[in-house]
Amino acid sequence: MTTPATIPPLRSLDELAPGQTYDLGGFALSEAEVIEFARRYDPQPFHLDREAARESLFGELVASGLHTLAATFGHLMRSGWLAAVSLGGNRIDTRWPAPLRPGEPVRLKVEVLEVQPSRSGRPLGVAKLRYLLAREADGVVVLDSVGTHFLRR
Amino acid sequence: MTTPATIPPLRSLDELAPGQTYDLGGFALSEAEVIEFARRYDPQPFHLDREAARESLFGELVASGLHTLAATFGHLMRSGWLAAVSLGGNRIDTRWPAPLRPGEPVRLKVEVLEVQPSRSGRPLGVAKLRYLLAREADGVVVLDSVGTHFLRR
Repeated sequence: MTTPATIPPLRSLDELAPGQTYDLGGFALSEAEVIEFARRYDPQPFHLDREAARESLFGELVASGLHTLAATFGHLMRSGWLAAVSLGGNRIDTRWPAPLRPGEPVRLKVEVLEVQPSRSGRPLGVAKLRYLLAREADGVVVLDSVGTHFLRR
Repeated sequence: MTTPATIPPLRSLDELAPGQTYDLGGFALSEAEVIEFARRYDPQPFHLDREAARESLFGELVASGLHTLAATFGHLMRSGWLAAVSLGGNRIDTRWPAPLRPGEPVRLKVEVLEVQPSRSGRPLGVAKLRYLLAREADGVVVLDSVGTHFLRR
């Protein structure tokens, strides 16, 4: 389940300015995906098995935070917003204030925190973007992440 | 390709102290895995296609940083070190000082940064652990990550 972003593709770092916010649409993770990701990248009982998850602090099966993060970036990249300008990145600082349960629709918003053109004169620069992923049902934030991106100018 | 960890399973948060370091063994990511992960979670040309990657800042195909991070945690969890004590986590701050290429063997070291038993008297606490993933060939660090873990006491 995916809601497309309503955001036009970025053509240059120079179109970004601190304080801008964008709605990037939403998605949900199925229970099968949650378990498949956890098997490979975060095999802990509360991400793998409904019964075992009942005994955990979460009380129920929840997505690995790394899955929430990866799915957020997959959604971001598929939106096409950064496709013409993205050159990579070198840092992501992620907090998970609440867990994401399978099937729960979430919505992604992006806020521009910092924009710094390269001082070397090369046609690129650094943007710090904050990603907030919140449950559609109650607005609770399940991922709060700041990414450092290298973007074309 | 995986080198097992030589680390005994942790039985309690109380066995950790700041400054301890552990060798968690190593792994490598195949080109097929790199491309499969990127298709779902980070579909950018320099993670998907050898030819397209030549035109990128990287000059060659490299793993998504999110894949490097997820594979590191998969390796960590499969080591069994935290299996008896891990209750979840709420933050990971990750830097990628250099890219990871397919097939390149890397080795994982963990350093204990902080240990804080719960003040509520519950049998758990918080540990901040730093993960350093370095290339076997030249020691270059490809992932430098600090995770905030909730661990049983």
